[in-house]
Amino acid sequence: MVKSLSDSSITIVGLGLMGGSLALALRARKACKNIFGVTRNPVAHHAVDRASADLSLVSEADIIVLAAPVRTILEQLPRVSQIAQPGAMVIDLGSTKCEIVGAMEELPSHLEPIGGHPMCGKEISGFQAADAELYQDAVFVLSPLERTSSQTLSLARALAEAIGARPIIVDPKRHDKIVANISHLPYTLASALMSMMDQLSHEDNLLYTLAASGFRDTSRLAASDTTMMLDILMTNRQNVADAMCQYSRRLAELADMIYEGDESDVRGILEVAATRRKELFKP
Amino acid sequence: MVKSLSDSSITIVGLGLMGGSLALALRARKACKNIFGVTRNPVAHHAVDRASADLSLVSEADIIVLAAPVRTILEQLPRVSQIAQPGAMVIDLGSTKCEIVGAMEELPSHLEPIGGHPMCGKEISGFQAADAELYQDAVFVLSPLERTSSQTLSLARALAEAIGARPIIVDPKRHDKIVANISHLPYTLASALMSMMDQLSHEDNLLYTLAASGFRDTSRLAASDTTMMLDILMTNRQNVADAMCQYSRRLAELADMIYEGDESDVRGILEVAATRRKELFKP
Repeated sequence: MVKSLSDSSITIVGLGLMGGSLALALRARKACKNIFGVTRNPVAHHAVDRASADLSLVSEADIIVLAAPVRTILEQLPRVSQIAQPGAMVIDLGSTKCEIVGAMEELPSHLEPIGGHPMCGKEISGFQAADAELYQDAVFVLSPLERTSSQTLSLARALAEAIGARPIIVDPKRHDKIVANISHLPYTLASALMSMMDQLSHEDNLLYTLAASGFRDTSRLAASDTTMMLDILMTNRQNVADAMCQYSRRLAELADMIYEGDESDVRGILEVAATRRKELFKP
Repeated sequence: MVKSLSDSSITIVGLGLMGGSLALALRARKACKNIFGVTRNPVAHHAVDRASADLSLVSEADIIVLAAPVRTILEQLPRVSQIAQPGAMVIDLGSTKCEIVGAMEELPSHLEPIGGHPMCGKEISGFQAADAELYQDAVFVLSPLERTSSQTLSLARALAEAIGARPIIVDPKRHDKIVANISHLPYTLASALMSMMDQLSHEDNLLYTLAASGFRDTSRLAASDTTMMLDILMTNRQNVADAMCQYSRRLAELADMIYEGDESDVRGILEVAATRRKELFKP
């Protein structure tokens, strides 16, 4: 019998930006019976009812939320499987889903796994960036396994809705391909831009002096936490590399058009891009 | 004899984002004797002492500011040369400098030309986006010609400083190469990203549902005014195409490293990019 969210004790493993914001959001809305946190950061202790640096705190939870970088979650799952109490829901907040949901398949049958990925984030990381409103209106992807019970799915939905997010169900493969394009590709674009500008700045010391808000925004994601991002890229390698290669070819084609002065072709591409961008993000 | 800024009548040709913001900034600081504006937009009339849709208003000015898209400025210069009063300073706010400064060389000797490019902007355009504070603390590039007198240079500096900007002198060739990398490249990256996502969104209707703030920021520049941007790209074709090709190759290399799982190489690139980005834009 799965408990309701308000009757549940929840243990959040990792109180960084995502886990810390979850703890603050759940506490602000009094959504759970108890909120426990696994963290090594003493500053994060005040966000939870009880904190410990040791994963053993998951043994007291009805809901276990794994909120570490993706490959840390993969390392934690075997230990969680040994100490979690029967019937506990195990959900993660990892940014790639195939490897994690694949590893969740191996959890013992007395546990209730489901993959999760809230579509929000910042380029700043750690508990100091945590914000009780981070999840408000964000899409919260849920990736149920075949074995995931309808009660567990309902509980996961209730968790997402309790923090103001909008749960949607997405298959892990489809999720990983989409986020490779809409999320991981933009990160690699920002990093490659920053990397190239770093080199050019040694050739001309005025380079950054002439930087304005356009460069600032386009490069923003390059400041993301590299451990977290490396885990994401390394657990979604083929999709990310495919997206980057496709993009690289398109950019080279556009460069050719500009070089050749194919004005009407260039205009066509720029105008479609401008129209779509304005439709997508209305001021 | 060149007048001081406060004794000057100034005519701003084009009251869009840049010209409109200049008019508002000069008026707020009472920096000039008169502010005239050439515009077809009635809403912009209140920003100036007198407005007209006709370029002939430049004939009354001690300072003529050409604030249209780059190729419109190139079209306006011959007419300006016919009707501007002797001794008038002719400065532009165009985003590329080689073609404009080259055309300024042809102005009659009784005019005082100097190239200009304030390093500020928004992805929204037109007078409705104008802001008296747009230039505050922005770098304002000045590109004097060989013939530019020291009095004209001083007056251009005074104009930049009057609106809170920081004037620096940059040679047109050096300017155009730098902005190809730090400004025009980011724009093409955002447009190519938006263009690719537009296509992918037809293949998977969940694509934009999973978009978060990272995609929003990286794609922001794609919403820029396409007429203005096309003028910029078409008057800086070789520099822009070179920057895009160099970037495209770097991205393909990074994609290969990710695909192959060369984790330490990927980490090295991402960490340098993250460190530089954080140094450059401190919160």
